[in-house]
Amino acid sequence: MQGTETPTSPAAVYTPTDRTVPTRSPNRASYDKELVHAILDEAYVCHLGFVRDGAPVVLPTLYGRVGETLYVHGSTGSRPLRMTGQADPGLAVCLTVTHVDALILARSAFHHSINYRSVVVHGTAYDVTDPEEKRVALDALVDHVVAGRSRDSRPANKKELAATAVIRLDLNEVSAKLRTGGVNDEPEDLALPHWAGVVPLRKGYGTPVGDPGLAPGTELPGYLGAL
Amino acid sequence: MQGTETPTSPAAVYTPTDRTVPTRSPNRASYDKELVHAILDEAYVCHLGFVRDGAPVVLPTLYGRVGETLYVHGSTGSRPLRMTGQADPGLAVCLTVTHVDALILARSAFHHSINYRSVVVHGTAYDVTDPEEKRVALDALVDHVVAGRSRDSRPANKKELAATAVIRLDLNEVSAKLRTGGVNDEPEDLALPHWAGVVPLRKGYGTPVGDPGLAPGTELPGYLGAL
Repeated sequence: MQGTETPTSPAAVYTPTDRTVPTRSPNRASYDKELVHAILDEAYVCHLGFVRDGAPVVLPTLYGRVGETLYVHGSTGSRPLRMTGQADPGLAVCLTVTHVDALILARSAFHHSINYRSVVVHGTAYDVTDPEEKRVALDALVDHVVAGRSRDSRPANKKELAATAVIRLDLNEVSAKLRTGGVNDEPEDLALPHWAGVVPLRKGYGTPVGDPGLAPGTELPGYLGAL
Repeated sequence: MQGTETPTSPAAVYTPTDRTVPTRSPNRASYDKELVHAILDEAYVCHLGFVRDGAPVVLPTLYGRVGETLYVHGSTGSRPLRMTGQADPGLAVCLTVTHVDALILARSAFHHSINYRSVVVHGTAYDVTDPEEKRVALDALVDHVVAGRSRDSRPANKKELAATAVIRLDLNEVSAKLRTGGVNDEPEDLALPHWAGVVPLRKGYGTPVGDPGLAPGTELPGYLGAL
């Protein structure tokens, strides 16, 4: 759930580019690094887009963050990871993370919406070949699922490391986009008899279910009780 | 949350293609139409991928389903919607929807995972120009947020219809992918002292908050009380 925090000044922002300034609702865009990190750290999967045979492909995948770098891993046989390895110049990707926070029901069909927080990262993904960086990245991927978990599991062995490809994507061309607040109906619609308002969406955790074969005396770790 | 149901026989499936047979874990793939519909109908946003200037773009967006067709809408000024309008042959897209159902904590870092259900749709998106299809699509988009809602809101007027672009994507080249179940640790790791198991993720609704300016006597509709 938590990326490794790097010290960023409160005003640290990504520099907007043609690709990260939205054509619509630019007032909903943000380049604030802390906000971007928070959105990235809260989600479990990203949607990774790349181009194959001229057509777009969008796949959900786990990821981890170490400062200003995102890591995605997968089998060395999986498509995007094979593609980065083959191409020296890297693979052009777009990595997107979205939270849906509330449903917005307006009196008019037109103004129905959702409150959301999203991050879109444009860039080039590169194969991680340095063994130390690969270990750091894999720890970040496990710690992204549950903070601190990499220290409470068996690290990858040589065979597993060899079977796992990791790609890195630096956070340079990045934007967040958010909708918050309530209903934006037209003034002439306010007297209509339709209910309008905000329906919040909630996320939470169920009770952890231990694997049947746990070693005797293995207790539920504190970092899970806190979820 | 509900798309318009079309009668499909229990065995109705999408025909697998090169793009919809995964290179990894093909046993997790499904082409069952009912399963695909259920995954699509449960989510609020999809991630829509397209190619712009040779690079992938992945944007979160609302969608609706009518039988075997998905509809995405947006301002006529937004990028993917402008692109379909400009190109007669349509726009190559990949539309992906993902639910994260549980965290899988294994004794080994390598076997950490999540339980998920995803749908990936490959195809060509076309501008919807027929006014009647556009109205049906916009109703489906509103009803996707809350079933039945389109009948309890003011329909789009001419100005709003003109400002809204709708694209259609037929469900032909489609696959679902799922991970379910528990931990898959290596036999030699079972005695390790690390807790392993499944942490379910829960989704739910908070209390609806009415817009401050509701017309007098406007009650919370029954379809929201049932959420």
